[in-house]
Amino acid sequence: MKRSFCLVLTSLVLGAQPLSDGPHFTTAGELLLPKDYRQWVFLSSGLGMTYGPAAQANPTDPLFDNVFVNPSSYRAFLETGHWPDHTMFILEVRRSTSKGSINNGGHYQSEVAAIEAAVKDEARFKEKWGYFGFGRGDKATPLPASSACNSCHRQNAAVENTFVQFYPELLEVAKRKGTLNQGFSESH
Amino acid sequence: MKRSFCLVLTSLVLGAQPLSDGPHFTTAGELLLPKDYRQWVFLSSGLGMTYGPAAQANPTDPLFDNVFVNPSSYRAFLETGHWPDHTMFILEVRRSTSKGSINNGGHYQSEVAAIEAAVKDEARFKEKWGYFGFGRGDKATPLPASSACNSCHRQNAAVENTFVQFYPELLEVAKRKGTLNQGFSESH
Repeated sequence: MKRSFCLVLTSLVLGAQPLSDGPHFTTAGELLLPKDYRQWVFLSSGLGMTYGPAAQANPTDPLFDNVFVNPSSYRAFLETGHWPDHTMFILEVRRSTSKGSINNGGHYQSEVAAIEAAVKDEARFKEKWGYFGFGRGDKATPLPASSACNSCHRQNAAVENTFVQFYPELLEVAKRKGTLNQGFSESH
Repeated sequence: MKRSFCLVLTSLVLGAQPLSDGPHFTTAGELLLPKDYRQWVFLSSGLGMTYGPAAQANPTDPLFDNVFVNPSSYRAFLETGHWPDHTMFILEVRRSTSKGSINNGGHYQSEVAAIEAAVKDEARFKEKWGYFGFGRGDKATPLPASSACNSCHRQNAAVENTFVQFYPELLEVAKRKGTLNQGFSESH
């Protein structure tokens, strides 16, 4: 009796934590946008990053991209250099601004332009990882395995299907743990 | 007896959490760099932000700045639009890279160039907020109240002494809660 009361108390305390960690799907297989992803662990950001020819980039109105991952998977990666099943990444794309308040140069972030996600789910996706674009909604269906996201991540990622090459802190972890993909090269 | 055992169990469970939330000082008044600040809540990042004349900026080698805040203070701000006492910000400055792996344009983040902090401590600092630069170390003494950091934050910040004008999600919270500083203007 004492023990069960303690477990209930412990559950209540843990249940008060604000993080709902990892992916949640509807019964129809749609991925839900986590309401609290801004409290997930930030991996890195870029400005105007361009995977195709640089001429395609828009230097006057570049976009920021912020990458977040669910906290328990981040902590697992620090320990192992691998992503556990049910890892979820959020890519938040924001517009940029140059002049406002006391800022005279460079760029800072403004409104959200797009939200995308990547999920590792070995049972759900043939290639283990699925990719999603939320548009203006809070639910998304996976892109087909033939999508550009799937093939680019499959071919170019540093660790499993993830672009750890752009997350400097985790790149060091992967080097130490020896978990970089065979054939991956940092050089251009 | 039952109660104390439960409290011990609860403390043990909570003690397993990786976040050590907020500022910690040595007995000599030095601020300790939190080992886990990368698991704090990310507020925003900028690239090459320039508060003085834009000509001072270095457009060929701009720096990223990532801002993190301790999680409990972030959650309090979402509720109230104010920062509780013992709020702590970390400003992580990183170098940028343009070409590497599949990236051909724009900028992504590389190694850490500097780490700074701002702490709200009403008992410790006459103006409530103190500012710190860690250099290569993991301890820092507060800058004098006459520092450029202190005066710029005092004069130009959107909420209390913090640059919420550059954190788009929190700027909306402050507008809704009516906690913007009197006289603050977003325009340049």
